[in-house]
Amino acid sequence: MTAAADTQTRPFAQALKDAQARIAAHMELRLAGRDELHAAMRYAVTGGKMLRGFLVLESASLHGVSMEAAIEAALAIECIHAYSLVHDDLPCMDDDDLRRGQPTVHRKWDESMAVLAGDSLQSFAFELLADRKVGPHALTLIRGLAQASGKDGMVSGQMLDIAAETAAGPLTLEQITRLQGRKTGCLIEWSASAGAVLAGDDTAPLRQYARALGLAFQIADDILDVEGDAAKVGKAVRKDADAGKATFVSLLGLTEAKARARELCEEACAALSPYGAAAGTLKEAARFVIARDS
Amino acid sequence: MTAAADTQTRPFAQALKDAQARIAAHMELRLAGRDELHAAMRYAVTGGKMLRGFLVLESASLHGVSMEAAIEAALAIECIHAYSLVHDDLPCMDDDDLRRGQPTVHRKWDESMAVLAGDSLQSFAFELLADRKVGPHALTLIRGLAQASGKDGMVSGQMLDIAAETAAGPLTLEQITRLQGRKTGCLIEWSASAGAVLAGDDTAPLRQYARALGLAFQIADDILDVEGDAAKVGKAVRKDADAGKATFVSLLGLTEAKARARELCEEACAALSPYGAAAGTLKEAARFVIARDS
Repeated sequence: MTAAADTQTRPFAQALKDAQARIAAHMELRLAGRDELHAAMRYAVTGGKMLRGFLVLESASLHGVSMEAAIEAALAIECIHAYSLVHDDLPCMDDDDLRRGQPTVHRKWDESMAVLAGDSLQSFAFELLADRKVGPHALTLIRGLAQASGKDGMVSGQMLDIAAETAAGPLTLEQITRLQGRKTGCLIEWSASAGAVLAGDDTAPLRQYARALGLAFQIADDILDVEGDAAKVGKAVRKDADAGKATFVSLLGLTEAKARARELCEEACAALSPYGAAAGTLKEAARFVIARDS
Repeated sequence: MTAAADTQTRPFAQALKDAQARIAAHMELRLAGRDELHAAMRYAVTGGKMLRGFLVLESASLHGVSMEAAIEAALAIECIHAYSLVHDDLPCMDDDDLRRGQPTVHRKWDESMAVLAGDSLQSFAFELLADRKVGPHALTLIRGLAQASGKDGMVSGQMLDIAAETAAGPLTLEQITRLQGRKTGCLIEWSASAGAVLAGDDTAPLRQYARALGLAFQIADDILDVEGDAAKVGKAVRKDADAGKATFVSLLGLTEAKARARELCEEACAALSPYGAAAGTLKEAARFVIARDS
């Protein structure tokens, strides 16, 4: 099933660092324009964990996909993620001043730049995926990304999130799970399954992995919002608690939320069993997601 | 060169009306979701002239492309155009209350809805183009639309437009031509050449037509801003003059601007000579563009 099933897996920390360096270097090359718009786009895609891009590259390696094709998809997902953060931070949305430990785009430039840099990061993502280097499954990947990021995916999750703020009561566990599945889960699923899509292989195991991982990731985020240190996290913390927003922590309690995250981490790892030892790095990634402090 | 070269051309007014009805009907079907996000997206794509979608359908018909493929491209370009208007109307951009004679999205809903509806209209456009019905040239069309609408196309034009407002002096004719080429010209060129791209044919005549048409369109827009009636135009007029902004009219004078628009209209029509009589409707479209009152 996997082209790399018998190769040695690398330690996760090193694999993530490699992915970050590779994505950052390609992004510099591809966003080399000298105007302020390009500068704001580069700024917006810099300094993140690049977990989504890492998932693309790792799943591509598991499925024997060339780096030449995989890097386009990794850059694309980081552009989509960055655009969503830039727009989400706007005053009319979450109104955040700090992101990844730096001023948000509308604070460093202004609101119109944040709108336009986000817009062009989105179109740039699709431009990258439409490159001939991506190969015969590019359209499937493009369709998937448009769906995962759009009106029935990420954007609809953001909409539900905003609606929750003015709802009569706090959301239920089921509602929050659905909201987060759309807001962050869809893009994580796209990222982790990208390698299988690019190879034309079965995407089921990676999708199952990604669904558990995505939920674990969000629970960990809610735990960080309560326990985290703003300096390390790189953005404001305790925002949800202060706003009286329902989160996995407010609904489950801290102990139960941590137990649930661990369970999901185990589920995620179990889904990778068809890959055997080759999936070691992705399993480590799941453990990192629930243990991270930023 | 053209599959329909010997067919009768239809009167432009009828062809435009047909295109509008067809695009509106398909849009209703494809944006049928019952939540507020879908409602705002439908609202944003409603009521326009749909000139870009018309150009797609007309060029597709000239090149013998099936309606099944062409309609996806027509819907896509109307979604991109609508998203750009919704974001352009935001308070941090042009701050407009009226569009197509109706309240702008951020006035009817709020700013966060305008950001999100615009974002998901953009992703929906790429989702439409990634549909299998579009055929073997879908990737070329996607790459072209991402480039025409993004950081080196429409969005960069909007950026130049905003920068012009705070520039030391008014723009020169060359600068305005460049700005408008990016802001509106790129998408008009994509639209008019879409049929040739979908058929895998030479795009040169349609691109030449579109470049002249796009510039004529913008000059006509500047003339409307001076001479137009807000009720007919459906948006605020005399904004540019009041803001002391350089326009084709302020730089050329009204008489010269009208003469230049007529010249460009002739250029556009001449570019269509390889199509013979089959291009009659597109030639009429060019004449409509410079004579319109809205």
